[in-house]
Amino acid sequence: MAAMASLFTNTPIQSNPFPKTHRINFPIAAPRSFSCKQKPITKPIRVSCGLIEPDGGKLVELVVPESQRDLKKREAMSMPKIKLSRIDLEWVHVLSEGWASPLTGFMRESEFLQTLHFNSLRLGDGSIVNMSLPIVLDIDDSQKNRISGSTSVALIDSSDNPVAILNNIEIYKHNKEERIARTWGTTAPGLPYVEEAITGAGDWLIGGDLEVIQPIKYHDGLDRYRLSPSELRAEFTKRNADAVFAFQLRNPVHNGHALLMTDTRRRLLEMGYKNPVLLLHPLGGFTKADDVPLSWRMKQHEKVLEDGVLDPENTVVSIFPSPMHYAGPTEVQWHAKARINAGADFYIVGRDPAGMGHPVEKRDLYDADHGKKVLSMAPGLERLNILPFKVAAYDKTKQKMEFFDPSRAQDFIFISGTKMRSLAKNKENPPDGFMCPGGWKVLVEYYDSLAASDSGRVPEPITV
Amino acid sequence: MAAMASLFTNTPIQSNPFPKTHRINFPIAAPRSFSCKQKPITKPIRVSCGLIEPDGGKLVELVVPESQRDLKKREAMSMPKIKLSRIDLEWVHVLSEGWASPLTGFMRESEFLQTLHFNSLRLGDGSIVNMSLPIVLDIDDSQKNRISGSTSVALIDSSDNPVAILNNIEIYKHNKEERIARTWGTTAPGLPYVEEAITGAGDWLIGGDLEVIQPIKYHDGLDRYRLSPSELRAEFTKRNADAVFAFQLRNPVHNGHALLMTDTRRRLLEMGYKNPVLLLHPLGGFTKADDVPLSWRMKQHEKVLEDGVLDPENTVVSIFPSPMHYAGPTEVQWHAKARINAGADFYIVGRDPAGMGHPVEKRDLYDADHGKKVLSMAPGLERLNILPFKVAAYDKTKQKMEFFDPSRAQDFIFISGTKMRSLAKNKENPPDGFMCPGGWKVLVEYYDSLAASDSGRVPEPITV
Repeated sequence: MAAMASLFTNTPIQSNPFPKTHRINFPIAAPRSFSCKQKPITKPIRVSCGLIEPDGGKLVELVVPESQRDLKKREAMSMPKIKLSRIDLEWVHVLSEGWASPLTGFMRESEFLQTLHFNSLRLGDGSIVNMSLPIVLDIDDSQKNRISGSTSVALIDSSDNPVAILNNIEIYKHNKEERIARTWGTTAPGLPYVEEAITGAGDWLIGGDLEVIQPIKYHDGLDRYRLSPSELRAEFTKRNADAVFAFQLRNPVHNGHALLMTDTRRRLLEMGYKNPVLLLHPLGGFTKADDVPLSWRMKQHEKVLEDGVLDPENTVVSIFPSPMHYAGPTEVQWHAKARINAGADFYIVGRDPAGMGHPVEKRDLYDADHGKKVLSMAPGLERLNILPFKVAAYDKTKQKMEFFDPSRAQDFIFISGTKMRSLAKNKENPPDGFMCPGGWKVLVEYYDSLAASDSGRVPEPITV
Repeated sequence: MAAMASLFTNTPIQSNPFPKTHRINFPIAAPRSFSCKQKPITKPIRVSCGLIEPDGGKLVELVVPESQRDLKKREAMSMPKIKLSRIDLEWVHVLSEGWASPLTGFMRESEFLQTLHFNSLRLGDGSIVNMSLPIVLDIDDSQKNRISGSTSVALIDSSDNPVAILNNIEIYKHNKEERIARTWGTTAPGLPYVEEAITGAGDWLIGGDLEVIQPIKYHDGLDRYRLSPSELRAEFTKRNADAVFAFQLRNPVHNGHALLMTDTRRRLLEMGYKNPVLLLHPLGGFTKADDVPLSWRMKQHEKVLEDGVLDPENTVVSIFPSPMHYAGPTEVQWHAKARINAGADFYIVGRDPAGMGHPVEKRDLYDADHGKKVLSMAPGLERLNILPFKVAAYDKTKQKMEFFDPSRAQDFIFISGTKMRSLAKNKENPPDGFMCPGGWKVLVEYYDSLAASDSGRVPEPITV
């Protein structure tokens, strides 16, 4: 990555009409703490005294007041019902807390089409918000027939409990092939989200406005980590954060990650921010079978904080409830957009974000640089400061993780995810300084338990 | 189509954040002729005294001045060379005249990515222009190696004559699968443009700024119809047009089309425009094998004008030099955007524009309404007035083409393209009033000549 020497870049408002390449070295907005009334020095980023505004100006929250729950439950019981899958419920969770603000429910056709074609939605006032992943609910022919004539439907969980009401519904065709092609840029068989949630889905989509009957909980011991955007905003405000930098992850944290995060904070301080706070934000929804499950990742993250690798004073660890698409440059926009709604104004983007191997061909599905490039040009994300990930590797001379220095490439070892997994599986240790010992121990335990299980993957202790 | 009773709609700037359906009945801008200083009454459309501004504010023209031709030819001879296919040359033509303004040449990666993901490009001033189709030039490994180190390359035609110079080149990966999936919403085999221009293409794309050595001509007797955007603008200005409505087509004109076009003019006059001019704008580039070839379509269009079905006084017939993608909702945006650059501020959009049958499954590739919906929401097309096509059919009681009236559906016959072709092939006549006799005769002659040819398709007399 050529961006090695300089960490910061912004969504470029380019000075030439068609910039050849992704810009780095772009000056970023002045810290908000300098002067609340001061305009940003270098670019038209919206700077205000509080946290970054949610998309659409107002955080959408769709859980009904407690006083109305019984009423809404009774109303729901009289409506046609749609049973939610695990992933559907994760999307209800996402929508209910406003991660997808200003969406007020599952997409109707106009939102679905804008998402597929433009990765953005135009609002009533002509402004644009980013929206790159379809957040949709499918139904089949018989469900469609049962709903016929109703304007509202009840969404129920696997135990038939009403979860939400979908109002002012609109039913439209679910062209799966087109949805897949435009979201993933391939229709090859073997895409994890597609196999889990689309291939067997119904031929119709149903959109509408959600009323969620009570906060979505999973009762898996991790709900305390599931802070809503509103709760996160309160936490950042309580901590007097004047910059919030988000780190999305779905893997164990090693010391290279930690180096990046602490280095980001150092640079923000250098720029004049007084109290940059890190949002360490593991994804908690659906992931593919060979990813480390959420419960183990959270154990590992806890150890990383306990071991002092990251400073709890200026780190908030929380779970992002979205399911994972593995849709590369399309999905990274969603990951960034949702964090704006949670109050983050800086977003760290890695190499090949939300990428994976091509399911059929022997290559990565996406160009490793496209995620960063697409993110930096994405409509509706102009307010967000994009921080490209600097590559860290194990420096043999210093016996710790350091930013890779190509001038002495021979001093570095790259430890890939595959290598890390293979070491943990074989109960071998990585080089000293690769990961804190407590965190590594969790990983070894996980692979141990996995080997002991018949299925090849330990089921997560999740109940809904 | 529910829009039957009302012809006009605008790109909606919706008053509610997420409109459920495509809006019709949206009031459109006041005619420019009312008062040059008057602001539009109903919506923030840019209204000025002249024709609609080209995208980016200035029409891009890339043909070098005549005085420099010899010099540029000599320069080109010393550069690495890339031989252009027929379709490549059509794109050079398109770019050279500014149909794709503000593009100044084949796309570099940042334009390519924005096109694939956002169907639009962000300019230096932060404004957005529509751009839905990749306009790219592919090269293979050996060409890439030959170019290595050069900053400019010469583009040559099939006879090795230099056509253009591409400057400040950028070479980047050509992920064909991703390009196809994101452009067509399918990767099914059998897409005509893909088979013609992508499947066998090189694994690299080369972008840069074009200098075109002389105007592109085809010497097929039709060059006089190939007016550039600049020439069309001059023609509309000469005719004192205060509204220009464009009709894109790649099929013979029947009286249903003619009815739509004359009716559109009538309604524009009713709204207060003094001189709406029709741009009848058949597509002249690559088309699939079973479309009627350009030369025969132009003969047919000439007859339609000769027979007085359309009034030559307020009709400009010209050829749009773009090749056809058959990419439905993605492509219709290109068709509309290019016409803005030619001075059109009204665009007639039909049912299933740029659509075709799915190459593998027994269904249309695109939802028939998606083209219209996507067009009405497309970024960068807010200035354009979208006119949804009203469905015309043969009215048995009046023995002519009329707008379909569902309250007396039994009086109408729909004559599909397939039906029309089958009648012409069998030298049968359609019902009186379906198409002017001169125009029908051309069609019969075409299918006659086709039957006589071995290949099943008469080659067009095109030389480059």
